Amino acid sequence: METKAIRSRIFPLVKEACGRDGDIFAGKKSLLISDVVVNGTRQDIFIDENGVIAAVGTDAGRLSDHKADHVITAPGTWALPGFVNLHTHAAMSLLRGYADDLPLDQWLSEKIFPAEAKMTPGDVFVGTELSCLEMIKTGTTAFHDMYFFAEETARAARGMGIRARISYGFSDTGEPDRLESARKGAEAFVRTVRDYKSPLIQPGIGPHAIYTVSEEGLQWAGDFARKEGIGIHIHLSETEREVTDCLSLHGMRPARWLEKCGVLTPHTIAAHCCWVDRPECVLLARNGVHVAHNPVSNMKLAVSRTMPLPWLKKAGVNVGLGTDGCTSNNNLDLIEEMRMASLLQKFSWNDRTLLPPEAALAMATRAGSVALGLPTGRIEAGARADIILVRPSMPVPSPPGTIAGYLMYRGCGADVVTTICDGKVLMHERFVPSEEEIIRNASEAATNLIRRVTET
Amino acid sequence: METKAIRSRIFPLVKEACGRDGDIFAGKKSLLISDVVVNGTRQDIFIDENGVIAAVGTDAGRLSDHKADHVITAPGTWALPGFVNLHTHAAMSLLRGYADDLPLDQWLSEKIFPAEAKMTPGDVFVGTELSCLEMIKTGTTAFHDMYFFAEETARAARGMGIRARISYGFSDTGEPDRLESARKGAEAFVRTVRDYKSPLIQPGIGPHAIYTVSEEGLQWAGDFARKEGIGIHIHLSETEREVTDCLSLHGMRPARWLEKCGVLTPHTIAAHCCWVDRPECVLLARNGVHVAHNPVSNMKLAVSRTMPLPWLKKAGVNVGLGTDGCTSNNNLDLIEEMRMASLLQKFSWNDRTLLPPEAALAMATRAGSVALGLPTGRIEAGARADIILVRPSMPVPSPPGTIAGYLMYRGCGADVVTTICDGKVLMHERFVPSEEEIIRNASEAATNLIRRVTET
Repeated sequence: METKAIRSRIFPLVKEACGRDGDIFAGKKSLLISDVVVNGTRQDIFIDENGVIAAVGTDAGRLSDHKADHVITAPGTWALPGFVNLHTHAAMSLLRGYADDLPLDQWLSEKIFPAEAKMTPGDVFVGTELSCLEMIKTGTTAFHDMYFFAEETARAARGMGIRARISYGFSDTGEPDRLESARKGAEAFVRTVRDYKSPLIQPGIGPHAIYTVSEEGLQWAGDFARKEGIGIHIHLSETEREVTDCLSLHGMRPARWLEKCGVLTPHTIAAHCCWVDRPECVLLARNGVHVAHNPVSNMKLAVSRTMPLPWLKKAGVNVGLGTDGCTSNNNLDLIEEMRMASLLQKFSWNDRTLLPPEAALAMATRAGSVALGLPTGRIEAGARADIILVRPSMPVPSPPGTIAGYLMYRGCGADVVTTICDGKVLMHERFVPSEEEIIRNASEAATNLIRRVTET
Repeated sequence: METKAIRSRIFPLVKEACGRDGDIFAGKKSLLISDVVVNGTRQDIFIDENGVIAAVGTDAGRLSDHKADHVITAPGTWALPGFVNLHTHAAMSLLRGYADDLPLDQWLSEKIFPAEAKMTPGDVFVGTELSCLEMIKTGTTAFHDMYFFAEETARAARGMGIRARISYGFSDTGEPDRLESARKGAEAFVRTVRDYKSPLIQPGIGPHAIYTVSEEGLQWAGDFARKEGIGIHIHLSETEREVTDCLSLHGMRPARWLEKCGVLTPHTIAAHCCWVDRPECVLLARNGVHVAHNPVSNMKLAVSRTMPLPWLKKAGVNVGLGTDGCTSNNNLDLIEEMRMASLLQKFSWNDRTLLPPEAALAMATRAGSVALGLPTGRIEAGARADIILVRPSMPVPSPPGTIAGYLMYRGCGADVVTTICDGKVLMHERFVPSEEEIIRNASEAATNLIRRVTET
């Protein structure tokens, strides 16, 4: 892709449409998105220079016309809130395709662990950049991460202009030295992220799971999160073995164990929850915990039970969608995740009415915003402007059904043409300014990483 | 989309590349596809004016350069055999989105049956055109259909230039009059299709299923297929109820019943097979029956058991992929179907190693060609030229993994940029000449159909 040629193709369009000029990707300016479909009707969206949606309506354009620095005209495209990826390990995109379709033990012990042991902070940085690029290209404007070298993840996300809660991932496996090191690392990480003074990047703490983090480690994480006022990110009941081991070790199921250790808070996001039982769903609701559903990962990794969405909804749990890392998926496309969630829920719980398109779309957007406490997830005055524009790549005859119906049953990430986060344009007409450089860096890092792994 | 503008954008590219001109969509001419990735290496493909792949290789371009009427230059795009959709009801795209996420009884009796009762031959024609358009836009070059007004399906497919086996769908529900009418209809249909003298369109017979077709009807279909030398298309063991009803009515499971009725032949394609047991897999193999796996439909319609791919493969059954109709899916994208098949098989049979990308791609291409007895499914000299070109819409850093890995785990139909069937270019750079008209006609027909249904 030739950056200059593409810029020169896009900018005249912007200029012609509004009689203005300038680089819509640069800095934050006020922005008018004119004549797009919002909630079923054609409207304008005016975003002020602070990244806040100032007006939405058929006359928002007229009212704001004089003052918008930039205008995007995309008549008839669909404007939606940006997607929120509630569970991922962004840097793992560097290992995508390196170890697919293998049995669990071989996958972890022969492939993933040796590769992760060789990953450098620089690898985590460029892997995260690659993932942010893919998220931007598929309409995701916020993500919730857990990995090591979390400072690098935070730094990359900040540079890409995307919203993120980055959890400092750790496991102590019962070794006091490792826990001590995690404490120090987490404290430094929270300070570092706070020093960014970026409203887009939040720190969080990520005790990996009950089978990798000791009772002391879990208790410390709960205390640390409360003291710092940050969120907790944990894997919960992904596999059956986690449940049976927990029962024999602690005499209780995993969610009850986490409650006992003080890890379940209204700022906790539990990923997977495939094997939770009904009382655990009630327990999660009582503690205000949010759940990240990762249907593609659960299928690819053959966990063989589907997160019980009907029980969680009945209990009142807020459930969003995640992709998991790129070795377990292998993409970051939340439109696909919506479809998989709906199909897998219908199939597994034998109910064709489960998770219709509007509900799946709400999971991919609003539920994620609620879980992360973000001022986004809706296109209305006062919300921060995390907005995507969608132009269907497949024929849409009328009556077209609903936009959510198209997206969930037919759409894919490539249908997203424009991605705006906090009022800043990150992609327009599928063009992301830094794409070539990011791919080049990731290619180099992935090649070198795999060379280092296979040489030993 | 403005046809003229798009043509003028595409044709200069073709002209510049080869110093020739002309309409690559018109008629059949020899065609050179230069510098594309075939089986992992960059090669040229030369297709003669009869639609046969005459040469593939690094020097195919040099050898054929003087005589190619048209040249497509798409450096580095991936050339693959066109996809084969082994089970669909093309005309149902007209009803897509009309009745999603409903319980089975309400779906059928309140929505689908009343709508189908109002469908005219003209509706089937434009609905099939719309589906052919979508298949072309997602890289499918051959499909296997079953519906009523099958003449219209065949006529539409012929006009779109796509390869198809069109089965005359019927159910007699034990009424001799209905069977008699089906016999006459099927005989006339086979004559009509044979009169086309089109090598692309084959007729077939489609007894709907054991629960809608009588013993006499099934026996007649088997005899008719043998007499005419045509294929059989039937739904088999889609739901558990079909099995339990068959056991109580006939004292045997569905596949055994079909064998007894003479319906299982090496030219029979059985769709779904979700609830077959191990001995039935062996029985299907023994009869040379091919199976169409429809994972998305099975999930959407909550059939709650996954086709036992490991048993079928062990028995030696050839298994391809289908989308089912657009009310059960709701798209015709075989790249998505590959992904769903792999994920659902892994998840349901608790085995991460099941259906890796190369195997899924073979199901979507070669296995379908084998099932339909087509001279396609591979890019090599002598095969007929059903070829697609794929350009990934998502970043592909190197090491890129395999092309099959990208497609199955990350791709979507929108990644297909060029579709060629029997040597004729049906889509180039995502442009299909008749797209606007087809969508307009389908929109009108769908609107009128739904008006007629809701007025009664």
